[in-house]
Amino acid sequence: MSRVLVVGAGLLGASLGQALSKAGHEVFLNDSSSSNLRLAVDYGAGKPIETMRVEPDLVVVCVPPDHAARAIVDALARYQDAAVTDVTSIKAAILDEVLQLDPTADVARYVGSHPMAGREKVGPASAQSDLFFSRPWIVTPHEKSDPMRVAQLRSIAADLGALPSQATPAAHDEAVALVSHLPQLVSSLLAGLLVDANPDHLAVSGQGLRDTVRIAASDPDLWIQIITRNSVAILPLLSALSDSLNKLRVALAALDEPGSLKALHQVLQAGNLGAARIPGKHGGKSVSYSVLTVVIDDSPGQLAKLLTEIGEIGVNLEDMKLSHSPGAPIGIVELSVLPENGDLLAAELAARDWRLA
Amino acid sequence: MSRVLVVGAGLLGASLGQALSKAGHEVFLNDSSSSNLRLAVDYGAGKPIETMRVEPDLVVVCVPPDHAARAIVDALARYQDAAVTDVTSIKAAILDEVLQLDPTADVARYVGSHPMAGREKVGPASAQSDLFFSRPWIVTPHEKSDPMRVAQLRSIAADLGALPSQATPAAHDEAVALVSHLPQLVSSLLAGLLVDANPDHLAVSGQGLRDTVRIAASDPDLWIQIITRNSVAILPLLSALSDSLNKLRVALAALDEPGSLKALHQVLQAGNLGAARIPGKHGGKSVSYSVLTVVIDDSPGQLAKLLTEIGEIGVNLEDMKLSHSPGAPIGIVELSVLPENGDLLAAELAARDWRLA
Repeated sequence: MSRVLVVGAGLLGASLGQALSKAGHEVFLNDSSSSNLRLAVDYGAGKPIETMRVEPDLVVVCVPPDHAARAIVDALARYQDAAVTDVTSIKAAILDEVLQLDPTADVARYVGSHPMAGREKVGPASAQSDLFFSRPWIVTPHEKSDPMRVAQLRSIAADLGALPSQATPAAHDEAVALVSHLPQLVSSLLAGLLVDANPDHLAVSGQGLRDTVRIAASDPDLWIQIITRNSVAILPLLSALSDSLNKLRVALAALDEPGSLKALHQVLQAGNLGAARIPGKHGGKSVSYSVLTVVIDDSPGQLAKLLTEIGEIGVNLEDMKLSHSPGAPIGIVELSVLPENGDLLAAELAARDWRLA
Repeated sequence: MSRVLVVGAGLLGASLGQALSKAGHEVFLNDSSSSNLRLAVDYGAGKPIETMRVEPDLVVVCVPPDHAARAIVDALARYQDAAVTDVTSIKAAILDEVLQLDPTADVARYVGSHPMAGREKVGPASAQSDLFFSRPWIVTPHEKSDPMRVAQLRSIAADLGALPSQATPAAHDEAVALVSHLPQLVSSLLAGLLVDANPDHLAVSGQGLRDTVRIAASDPDLWIQIITRNSVAILPLLSALSDSLNKLRVALAALDEPGSLKALHQVLQAGNLGAARIPGKHGGKSVSYSVLTVVIDDSPGQLAKLLTEIGEIGVNLEDMKLSHSPGAPIGIVELSVLPENGDLLAAELAARDWRLA
C-alpha cells in the first residue's frame, strides 16, 4: 500500500482521498484553503499534511488547471522520490507549463492522468469515494516518464475500480477535444441563443432541446481553463463545424438552387452516421434497443412497482429514463431493452395493466 | 362524439385513430398504401374509408409535409361540412401551399394543429393510443378560421389527454424553429463531425456527447421536409449561431489579445443562462434538484429493489436516469429529488447498504 499526498481537496481531490483510503492507502491532504482542508479531513478523505512525517510515494495534484503546473513542479522539487501525477482534463499544455516553469524538473517522475469522472457539484462536501468506479482513467506518459511510475499509477487507478487506459498527452487532448470540449462548446453556443428567447417559445421545449443543452449548465470558470489549454485541438473542429454550418445556411437560403436539397440531406444523413459511431454500453459496439414507453402516476412507489414487475418478468433493462410532461401529474418511463425482449416485455406489462404509451 | 376521418395511417395517424376510437369517436382511415391501411385497421385505429357512409365531422391529415397541402385541399373539397386539420410540425408553409393549390378553398374550415408527440419508430404497427397523452398540442388558427372549428379541435385534443394551446401559424413556426429545428440541426452538425473520427477518440465518449447528439439519429427524409418549410424562421437562428461561433473561434485563436478571455467566458456564461431558462417539470419554473448517484449491479431486479426502497422511504423521484459504464457490469442510477429530500434519501439509502457513488 502506498503513502499518497493529494494536493487540492476539492470534489476530485477529496473523492480520490476517500477512495484511496478505502483501498487501504495512507492518504495525506493539502489545500490552500484551510477550511476546505478541514472539511475534506472531516469527510474521511485523509489526514492533514502537517501530520505527514515521511515522504509520500505518490503526489496527486487535484487543483484547477490554472494552478496545476505550479503544484506539479513544487511536488517534484519537494519530494525527491515521489511519483507525481495530476487529474487535469488537458494534458499536453500542463506538461509544457511544467517544463517552462522548471526546465530542470525531474519529469521522469511525472506522469499525467485524466480520470474521466465528475459531478455537477464542487467542493469536498460533495466527495464520493466511488466517483472513479468504472470510469475511464487515461494515463498519459510523456517521452521521459519512468515506465515504473506509469505502471504504479495504472495500478492505483485499477485499485479504485477505474478503467485505466493509456495515450500520449497529444492523443489524449485530441480525443477530448472531439468527445468533450467540442460538445461542450456546441451546447453552450446553442443554449446561448435561448438567453433572449420569448418565454412562450421556450414553453413548448421538448426533450430534444433539453438533452442538447444539458451540459451548457457546466461551470464557466473551470471550462475556460480547459478550452484555453486545448485551443490547438479544438480550433480545427470549430473550423469544420463552421464549414458545415455555412454549407447548411447556403443550402437553406437558396432552396431552389440545384444541389441544395442534396446538401441539406447530407447534413442530416451525416448526423445519423456520426451518432451511430459512438460506442454503446460497456464500451461495446453501438446497439439499437427496443424502447417501450410506460405512463405512470407521478407518486412515490409507482416506478418501484413497475420495476419490481419487470424484475418478475425477468427482462433486464439496458437503459431507462423517467421524465415528466409539462402540466400533468404523470411520469413517462422509457425502458430500453434488447430487441429480442421488447415484444415479451410489452405483452407482459400490458397484461399487468400498465399503460404503454 | 364525432365522426373523424384520418388521412394517412402511419405512426401518427394510426395512433390518433386508436386514441380517438378509445375516446368514443367513430374513426375512418385512408392511406395511399393499402397494406398500411389494413395494418392500421388491424391495430384498432379505425375502419377503412370504404365503409364510411356519411360525411365526417372532422378530417385529420396525417401525411408527411410534402403531401399535406394536397390532402387538406382534397378534404375541404370532398367533405363540404367537415372541419379539416393536419398534424404537420410546420404551419405557415402548409397554409400557404393550401391557398396556392386552391385559392377558392373554403379555408374557414381549415385549422392547422401540431400535436408535439412522436416516437423514434414509424408505421401503424408502432402506433400507441397514448401517444398524445399529456403532450402539448398547438392549435394554429389562421385569420379566416371559423372559431367554432377551432373550439372543436381544441376539445378533441383535450379528449385525448393532450394539452391544447393556441398560436398563429407564424408564431408556432418561430417557436419550433428555436426549440426543435435549431437543436435538430445543431445536433446533426455536431454528430456529422464524428463521421470520420478516430475510433480510439470515440471510445472515451461520455454522457455529454451522447446527450448532445441523441436527436441527430432522427429521420433525414422527414426532417428535410420540415426544415425546407421553415427556412425563414430557421435562417436567422443559424445566422446568430454562426456569429457566436465566429466570435468564439476568433477569441480562441488569439488568446493573448485583450478581451479574448472575456469573450470565451461570455459564451460559456450565456450557455448557463440560456439552459436555465427552459421551463422544468409540469411546465413550471426550472427547478434545481438534488441528484444522488447510486451504483447497482447490472442484473434484473436490482433497480426495482432500489426503487421499492425509495418508495418505502417515501421520497418522490422528480427524475431518474439509468446508465451503464463502458466495460463494467454495473448500472449507475441518477436520482433527482427535491432539494429538501436529498439528505434524507442519501442517509436512508446508505443505511440500507446501497452504494452511493
